[in-house]
This record gives sequence, C-alpha cells and structure tokens, in this order.
Amino acid sequence: MSTTTTLRSLNIDNINPHVKEAKYAVRGELAVRSEEYRAKLAKGSTDLPFDKIISANIGNPQQLDQKPITFFRQVLSLIEYPPLLEKEDVLLNQLGYKSDVIARAKWLLKAVGSVGAYSASAGAPALKESVAKFIEERDGHPADPKDIYLSAGASSGVNTLLHIICATPHTGVLVPIPQYPLYTASLSVLNARCVPYYLDEAKSWGTDLEAIKEAHKKAIAEGTDVRAIVIINPGNPTGASLSEDDVKAVIDFAAQEKLVVMADEVYQTNVFKGKFHSFKSVLRNLQKEDPEKYKYVELASLHSVSKGMVGECGHRGGYFELCGFDPAVQEQIYKFVSISLCAPVIGQCLVELMVNPPKEGEPSYELYKQEFDGIFAGLEKRATALYEAFKDMEGVECGVPQGSMYLFPTITLSDKAVEAAKKEGRSPDEFYAFRLLDATGVCVVPGAGFGQKENTLHFRTTFLAPGTEWVGRIRKFHSDFMDEFR
Amino acid sequence: MSTTTTLRSLNIDNINPHVKEAKYAVRGELAVRSEEYRAKLAKGSTDLPFDKIISANIGNPQQLDQKPITFFRQVLSLIEYPPLLEKEDVLLNQLGYKSDVIARAKWLLKAVGSVGAYSASAGAPALKESVAKFIEERDGHPADPKDIYLSAGASSGVNTLLHIICATPHTGVLVPIPQYPLYTASLSVLNARCVPYYLDEAKSWGTDLEAIKEAHKKAIAEGTDVRAIVIINPGNPTGASLSEDDVKAVIDFAAQEKLVVMADEVYQTNVFKGKFHSFKSVLRNLQKEDPEKYKYVELASLHSVSKGMVGECGHRGGYFELCGFDPAVQEQIYKFVSISLCAPVIGQCLVELMVNPPKEGEPSYELYKQEFDGIFAGLEKRATALYEAFKDMEGVECGVPQGSMYLFPTITLSDKAVEAAKKEGRSPDEFYAFRLLDATGVCVVPGAGFGQKENTLHFRTTFLAPGTEWVGRIRKFHSDFMDEFR
Repeated sequence: MSTTTTLRSLNIDNINPHVKEAKYAVRGELAVRSEEYRAKLAKGSTDLPFDKIISANIGNPQQLDQKPITFFRQVLSLIEYPPLLEKEDVLLNQLGYKSDVIARAKWLLKAVGSVGAYSASAGAPALKESVAKFIEERDGHPADPKDIYLSAGASSGVNTLLHIICATPHTGVLVPIPQYPLYTASLSVLNARCVPYYLDEAKSWGTDLEAIKEAHKKAIAEGTDVRAIVIINPGNPTGASLSEDDVKAVIDFAAQEKLVVMADEVYQTNVFKGKFHSFKSVLRNLQKEDPEKYKYVELASLHSVSKGMVGECGHRGGYFELCGFDPAVQEQIYKFVSISLCAPVIGQCLVELMVNPPKEGEPSYELYKQEFDGIFAGLEKRATALYEAFKDMEGVECGVPQGSMYLFPTITLSDKAVEAAKKEGRSPDEFYAFRLLDATGVCVVPGAGFGQKENTLHFRTTFLAPGTEWVGRIRKFHSDFMDEFR
Repeated sequence: MSTTTTLRSLNIDNINPHVKEAKYAVRGELAVRSEEYRAKLAKGSTDLPFDKIISANIGNPQQLDQKPITFFRQVLSLIEYPPLLEKEDVLLNQLGYKSDVIARAKWLLKAVGSVGAYSASAGAPALKESVAKFIEERDGHPADPKDIYLSAGASSGVNTLLHIICATPHTGVLVPIPQYPLYTASLSVLNARCVPYYLDEAKSWGTDLEAIKEAHKKAIAEGTDVRAIVIINPGNPTGASLSEDDVKAVIDFAAQEKLVVMADEVYQTNVFKGKFHSFKSVLRNLQKEDPEKYKYVELASLHSVSKGMVGECGHRGGYFELCGFDPAVQEQIYKFVSISLCAPVIGQCLVELMVNPPKEGEPSYELYKQEFDGIFAGLEKRATALYEAFKDMEGVECGVPQGSMYLFPTITLSDKAVEAAKKEGRSPDEFYAFRLLDATGVCVVPGAGFGQKENTLHFRTTFLAPGTEWVGRIRKFHSDFMDEFR
C-alpha cells in the first residue's frame, strides 16, 4: 500500500467491494478510448486513420441519426415555458404548432402543476392513468394506475426492483446470457447472485426452457435462494423477439418455482420479425385459462422512452407495472422510490406522450405517423445492410435482424489472434474490438461485456449510425485483421 | 404467515430487510393522508374543516408559490424544440425572448447534441466546465471539470457517494441530528451505520465540535469504522448557516481522523443571516496555510437546482465536486454512475443555467435579477411572518430564521397530550402533526422524522406557502390543542 493511499479515508482497497466487483462494459475502457479519439479529432488532429467516431457501443439514437418526434418536443417546449400558451395565434400561425399540441400541453400542466415541482413519488397520478390506458389497449386486459411506477428510465426501475428482491448474499436472480450488463452490475453492487442461463444462439437467441431449468436446479443445489427471473424481450444484445410459447413457458416455470418475472420490454416497438407479446397479456390469458395455477404470479414489466422510435434516452423517462405483488411489498417499493423523491417530471410527461401519441384524425397525426414509420423503416434498412455485410465476412456469423437496436454476430478468430490477445492481457473479442476502434473509429462492445458461452466470441453493434460507409470500414478492417493473424 | 404470503416469491418477511429498516418521513403516512384529503377536496367534498391542503412538509417551491425564472425556462423551451431557433424574428419580436436566450440555447445544443441523447456518464463536458468556472468565481480557487459529476439532484449524488464509502456493515458515517432523512435512509439501505451527532439548538443549531468528537469516539469504541462526516450547510431542517470557524473545525477534525467530508450545500443561496462559506473555499484556504496537514482531506460538496431561487426540483439536476480523492477511487465512482447511464440532460442544462445566469449588461439580466431578488425577499418575508407567529404561541420556541426553506420549532406538550399520543401508538410530535393536518389541512413533518434529542419535540415546516392565512390556521389549531390537553 502506498503512503498516499493510507493518508486518505478512501482507497481502492477499502471502498465498497461490491461496487468494485461490478462490471459495465458498455461504457468501459473502450468507450473511454473512443471519447479520447473524438476529443482529438475535435481539436483538428490528423494523426488518426479515420475522421469520425462511430459510437456503435450504446443505444443512443439521437446521438446519431435519429430525430426527435416533432409532436413530443413541441409539447415539451410549451410545458417548459407555459407563457407561450398565451400566444396561441403565434404558435398556430407562425410556428407551425397544431391545436392538439397546445391542448396536450395544457392538459399536462394541469396534471403536474409545474414541471419544476416534485411529483408524487411514483409519478403524477394523471400520467399513470394514461399509462394504464395504454397497457389496457395494448393487451386487452385492465391495468390499475396504482400498480404503475414512473421511473428515471427503465434502469432506475430495475434498480428499485432488485433492491427489494435482493435480501441476502444468497439471493439469486436468473439472468439471460448474453444480457444487458445493468443486471449483472446491479446484482454485484447489491451483493446478490447472478444465476446465468444461456440463450440458444442456434434458435435465434430464443429462451431455452431446459437451460433455464438446469441453471435454476444447479443454483438451488449450490444454496442459492432463487427469487426472480429476468427476461429481455426483444433481446439486448441479441435482438431476439420471443414467441408467445416462449413467454408462456417462462411464466409457467415462474409460477411453478415461485419466481418474480422481471420483463424488460423496452424494445417492444423495435420488432422487425414476428410480433411483440407482452408478458402481461400472456399472463392474463393464462390466468383466464387456469386461475388457480397462475393467480399469484408476480410480474414486473418495464418500459422506457429511451428506445423504440421515441429514442429520448437523455430525458430519463420510463415506468414499470406490477402484477400480483403483495400490497405490503408494494408499500416498501413506494417508500424506496420516495427516498429519491420522484422521476424527472419532463421525463414523466414524455412517457405520457409516448403512450398516448396523436390519434388518426388529430391534427398532428399525419406528421407523427410519417416520422414514426420513417424511423422504423430506417432502422430496419440499416440492420439489414449491416447483416448483409456480416454475412460476407470471413469467420463471422450473424442471425437475421429481428428487433431491438443491435446485432450480435459470432466471430471466429485464429489461434494466432487469440495468442496475441493473451499477450495484451485481453480476451480475444476485447482485443478485436480495440483493434477495430484503433483502425476505424468504430466503437462496439465485445461479447464478454454481455456474457457468452465458453469458447465463443461475439461483439454487439447498434445499427443506429447513418450511412453505410462505416460498415465498409468494418469490412475492410476485418479482412486485414484476418490476414494479419492468419 | 398467511397462505397468500407463502404463495408468492416476495412477502414482507423475505424482502431486503435493509429497505424495510429505512425510514423516510418526509413522504410518509402524514403526506399520504394529506394527498387523500387533497383528492377529496378536488372531488368537491365539503366534509373537511378546510378547503385547501398546504404541503409544508416538503421543500417543493413550484408546487406552492414560487415561479420559475424566465430566462431558464425560455432557454429550455428552445433546446426541447430546436426548430424554434429558425424563427428568430418571431422569438425576439413576438414572444419576448432576448438575444442571450437564443445564444445560450444554441450553445447548450452544441454542448449536448440533443437533450434526448445520453451524455457522458458524469455529464456533458462543456457543462462541467461551466460548473468549474462557477466554483472558481465563488471560491477564488481553481476547480477542475474532471472532478465534477452532474447528477439527478443532490439525492442521487449522495446515493453514489454513500455506495462507494459503505464497505461493510461496520462502516459508519457521522450524520447531524436533526438531519434530512435521505442520509439515514440511504445508510439503512446500504446496511451501514449512522453515527449521529447532535447539533446545538442553543447555538442556533450550529455544529458542536465536542458533540462530534464524542459521537466519533463512542462509535469507534463500539467497533464502527467511521469513514465520513455529513454536514448540511445551510441546515435542513434547521436552517442554520455555519460560521467560517465552524466549517474550519469540521475540516480540521476530518483531517485529523481521516474522514471524507460530505458537504450538502444545496441551500447555499438561501441565507438570510450571515454568509455562506463553502467547504471548498475554507479547505483551500487551510491548505494554503498548512499544506502538509490538509493535503489529503477528501471533500465531496453537493449542489442542486432544486432549492434556492431556482427551485426546479422536478427537473432533477445537481452536481457534486470531489477534492482530494484517490484517482483509483474516482474511477470506481465513474463506473458506478455509468451503470445508470447519465443524469437527465435537461436537468444538466438547468445546472449550467443556474451556475451561469445572465450577467449585468446582458439583455435578460434585469428581469433575471428582479425575479431572483423577488423570490429571495418573499422567502425571507414569509419566514419572518411564520417566526413571529411561533414566538406568540404557547409552548413553542423557534430560533430566528437564518436560511434554507425551513423552520424547526420546539414544541412543549402537556403530559395529557403525551398520554393521548401513546394511546394512538404515536410519538407526541407525530400525534400533534396528525391533529394539525386533520384540523387545518397543513402538512408538516414531526421532528422524529429528522431525529431529535430525547425528551424534545419539534416539527419542520417550509415557509414556501403564499399568504399568511395558513399561519393563522396553525395558530388557532395550536391554541385549541393546548386547551384540549391542558
């Protein structure tokens, strides 16, 4: 231990070890290096073999090409500065605001008072009513506003739920592998156990009930008190969109083993193939068929303004809905969210706008639909272009894009490349991703950051960046890399 | 255990016990009841002996009388909907926006890209530079943007810091009593120890170094690993504004005992008596005098857009600055904040606006100053009116208002009242606060929610509500209460 170290209260050896254990590769060393390159380029440096950084490491739509939805932002501009509402004629005739924008802004202001005031801890009641209506219409089953909690993005909802669930160091949560590392990182911080279950790459990264059962059984044998199962649908990083049968199988297993189902459904509108089946709707259908069996299934389903065609992650808005939770447990959840007061109120309003967009026949509908559909088509097009490129690349295998914002191809690297990685103290996929960044300015996340089966290698890339030039850069790099380590 | 209970994964006996232990009275049972009354009134009920709820339980300025600062909100409206910037003539000539509003909006958009995009984990770099400049000007000592972390209000900053500090169940943090219950609640959740030290009511709730030393010594004797000391300056709930000597004494003690100083300075502009002395400036001055002794003092100072004349708590913006922290520890803090991605970007922009408001000579300056000074004067006036009322009330003692948004009077209740409280299973101050709410619609927080010396009783009330009619209601209630329990 250095002298400096012992002169302070805090050093790397005496801070919270569980924070130290947490890993979060999406914004790790690679991302930091990419930001250094970006700063260098901004200062006019010409040393680098590229002139632009492509941040394909993070699902951050508006950092890249995606434009905000006009209706949403017009409403937000009015609720940020309500005196504009006194100039209706200017808004309508000179600034292109439609009457439904003005009406919605007035309604939201009535609902929250001021966007600068704290709301109720779990969100402004009128906004929660809108969310409940949306869920009812989506699923064809009732939803109760009192079971809805507005949160600062889905991440904050996950944090709340895991705080309640993780009771002891033996508590375990089933987490899909590969997964978005929020889950493993949060479980580390909470000193609880991640119980990994592998998704089935051969079946387009679907859930494999046998793999779940096996993981569960093994965990119990090791003394783990398994209390919940996480499902990300559509998948992150995999993009997989689960079939109704897969959803049923998970609920069935949860009912049998008394597990809370945490359904991370933030990509529910990003589905290119198949159809989104919400856990809530499937659960309610099962409960109709067999009330006794499914009566006490506990489901928490999460959604967010960050992804989909909304893409407003900087606003930190989201919600989760609870089904079947014990009221005494819900009281503790309410208290827990109270400690951080409330989710950002502008983000809460954006949740309302997302779940209650302009309807056919309303003045803003046409533009809204055009923007929404345009973003969807653009994502699908870029996903396909990237997929086609991967198909052509030696040693790269990638499933057809199904949804979310990501592709997660397998890469097969030579022994020579694996050896070179080892020399640098990196895993082979990390080594590959650093080389890719250094050569092209494209930042992806190595598969190790999400978890992957032993002896397999992957990386996750978003398909948000515009154009195809950067895809060409990846292709060229890959071919050079394969040649170098042949 | 009921059958229902055992049919679920989660019940009140098997969830995280540390969440259950946490107490957060500011939004507890009293606040919930006040919201029920509010809903009743909104539905037109005339059963209640009052026609309005006064939420004096929470520092929520814009829920009550405080208007947002025009400059801030005009800028936010533009960055929410940037196409408005293409209509400069309309903004300037028909909507009353000034040129500096437009310039700032453009600058902020350049700094963040889109307010709908994630920023860097610790905040957008250009905004952190503004914060550093503000601190430099405030303190006369340099500040480094890399040591600044933008957060979702100060609460989120406290959560981050305590997550790092709380290493084991033996870790202790010195917390002033009375205190804002965020600290005790967070320490409960983290399964760490609150080491309470009493503030000195007789000395206007100043810090009492002897009390701190004694609490520290006692904790160490009990096996507590004391690692940090929290100071709230100006105080919450006390309103006390610390003298420079008090600040020095705390830093001195922290240097000697190797404690992180957590300076919660969110009320730094709400000072009516005396002057705000930032911990950072006092620390840097001490370091000049005696570099050896103070070199390794670790200070985290927190600020927020929620309080002061800004009062934008619904936007969840804040920052903390670190001084003297080990770089390896800072890396862990960076990783921890990365897991929740970033603070709300609109809130980050509001932090920038708060620390860099219009300057003399700039087009928006005059209105800004008028609004800022008007809010300040209004707060002081209401604080004084409330203080005068308390002075006249039997069995109530209250110090002269010094700062923040609160008064924290002592109340002396009769044995008969104490007995009646016991019968209801409540502490006497809780009993009093419930009676006050039921009779007047005024919601305050009993002293027990902040901690108080044994055999003393208090309540905290904000002085944010407009008018004096509600003060009259308190006065009448109090006199009736004293008569009833005489």
